[in-house]
Amino acid sequence: MKIHNYSAGPCILPQEVFEEASQSVLNFNNSGLSILEMSHRSKEFVAVMDEAIALVKEVLNIPENYDVVFLQGGASLGFSIAAFNYLNTHASYINTGTWSTKAIKEAKRLGDVDVVASSESQNFNFIPKEYEVNNNTDYLHFTSNNTIFGTQFKSFPKTSAPLICDMSSDIFSRKVNIEDFSMIYAGAQKNLGPAGATLYIVKKGSLGKTNNNIPVMLDLAPQIEKESMYNTPPVFSIYVSMLTLRWLKKNGGISWIEKRNQEKANLIYSEIDRNSLFTGSAAIEDRSNMNACFLLTNEALKEDFDKMWNDAKISGIKGHRSVGGYRASMYNALPTSSVQVLVDVMKELERTKG
Amino acid sequence: MKIHNYSAGPCILPQEVFEEASQSVLNFNNSGLSILEMSHRSKEFVAVMDEAIALVKEVLNIPENYDVVFLQGGASLGFSIAAFNYLNTHASYINTGTWSTKAIKEAKRLGDVDVVASSESQNFNFIPKEYEVNNNTDYLHFTSNNTIFGTQFKSFPKTSAPLICDMSSDIFSRKVNIEDFSMIYAGAQKNLGPAGATLYIVKKGSLGKTNNNIPVMLDLAPQIEKESMYNTPPVFSIYVSMLTLRWLKKNGGISWIEKRNQEKANLIYSEIDRNSLFTGSAAIEDRSNMNACFLLTNEALKEDFDKMWNDAKISGIKGHRSVGGYRASMYNALPTSSVQVLVDVMKELERTKG
Repeated sequence: MKIHNYSAGPCILPQEVFEEASQSVLNFNNSGLSILEMSHRSKEFVAVMDEAIALVKEVLNIPENYDVVFLQGGASLGFSIAAFNYLNTHASYINTGTWSTKAIKEAKRLGDVDVVASSESQNFNFIPKEYEVNNNTDYLHFTSNNTIFGTQFKSFPKTSAPLICDMSSDIFSRKVNIEDFSMIYAGAQKNLGPAGATLYIVKKGSLGKTNNNIPVMLDLAPQIEKESMYNTPPVFSIYVSMLTLRWLKKNGGISWIEKRNQEKANLIYSEIDRNSLFTGSAAIEDRSNMNACFLLTNEALKEDFDKMWNDAKISGIKGHRSVGGYRASMYNALPTSSVQVLVDVMKELERTKG
Repeated sequence: MKIHNYSAGPCILPQEVFEEASQSVLNFNNSGLSILEMSHRSKEFVAVMDEAIALVKEVLNIPENYDVVFLQGGASLGFSIAAFNYLNTHASYINTGTWSTKAIKEAKRLGDVDVVASSESQNFNFIPKEYEVNNNTDYLHFTSNNTIFGTQFKSFPKTSAPLICDMSSDIFSRKVNIEDFSMIYAGAQKNLGPAGATLYIVKKGSLGKTNNNIPVMLDLAPQIEKESMYNTPPVFSIYVSMLTLRWLKKNGGISWIEKRNQEKANLIYSEIDRNSLFTGSAAIEDRSNMNACFLLTNEALKEDFDKMWNDAKISGIKGHRSVGGYRASMYNALPTSSVQVLVDVMKELERTKG
């Protein structure tokens, strides 16, 4: 019996991706070699990299005037990469949680940072919507989805400042107008692939406007010029990302997955709101379609509930310590049927203990 | 028929590692989950990380006063990490090739760099042995093995300056006295595992002596404090590295592999020296046990030789464009029998075309 994997990341990927990846660890495309022992300069792996980048562009409908590169280091290195490449004198940040806070800290090493809005005083349970951005700011940075607090920007900031977004936890989950952004970055390990690769989408002409002396591995220009091959890339993570993108495209791409993700979110949030034993922790209008955070209204039922979802082969729904309670992370590859199993357990708790 | 994989990296790993890794992509340790979909905070993966670090310490006989961490970004990010963490005012570098040159370039962003010795004028075909190091230098940096040019430090610099070494391409291949070093770093993708993880061995008390404002992902202190889990680590690369270290330990550890690597090197270099159709490109006393670089004495035989080794299922011996000719990379997992196949082809070329 397959486990219902609600892990907040690294997270569930499609079963067919695991099967093909497993085979390629033994013998990649009948080459007689494991994907793990192939040179990154081999024609076989160069084809993987090319296909991965082409699929990113196709699936996200990225315009011609953007470059796509795969790097390493996760969003945490991305916080520094964003600032090194774009912060000349002044940057603006919206603080919506743990990751925004870390991004701000890294940017402050390089220049003036204006936190134009923050939901920190309410434990980041909402997305700020009112703020002013300095006319002379180099960019406005925000985190599109906040895994820990279960909030998500439903619409993006309207500003004349260049937009930079850490989209780690909801990229590929919904339609995004790429042209609104100067740069988007995202750790792979939610909707794209396994840990170890990080995606950057960079508007042509947006680089080269700072005086920072940028370490070469944090400098987007040479990484773009070398087509993600400045040094040895994270071969396997990029390969599995490519397989996941093939799965996404084959099934109908972003319009298909956006609809499915909305169905899953509707299913869980309807139950949270209907069931007297549960309450959501995030502001309703800002609820994340990726991470549903909820609490028991009666903590005394914790042991019963925990046993019930464990028995149902549900894993990974313990909430982050910053919020407590539960967090159902419903990334792209989580089937609707897994959400139904959780909803059924919630109903059963109410029926037997409510 | 298995291919004789001489790839310069990513490179051959043990077959039993591929088999176990392949299984774990489907179902890790009967958890019902793929290793790719597990949280890095799960007790299962924390155990993998702990075992990987314990094996590194055991196999390399690392003293108690050193920390071991796994990061990302390869040696190329290591060039910056070395400089950010150790360069306060003045650093010394030995330039033995492409990677040293890049390390020097990154260090120069942060302070005075003295290239105390270089073999560049002879296309890096030897290891400089005579040089003076400034008494007030923060450290002396060198590259222990030069994959492209096939040279290797047979003994390490004797100096009172703290030693920092990029050991990417020969770590785990031979005994090293760790106590000689302040810091060692190494991309995983030669003797340790697949691409995507980078190993750091850091002497306790050696950090915190610079005034650099270090981006957190390049700052060794928090990475050590968070035990390689400051952010999501490259889960699969670390897992496969752990499997490779198990294989190394089980077979006899460093003393076993050092002997086997010496046998392989003796086999190929004896043939290069004996066979009138070939000549080695590196100074004999500095020849790398990892990467044997050699040239045809008569370029007209190239087509014949290339066909012969291709027919023998040898792959990856084309030399780097900086040297030309051939490069036989003989990392830990390459069996002696694969070297014998190459030697037999070299003999056959001489017999039929010599």
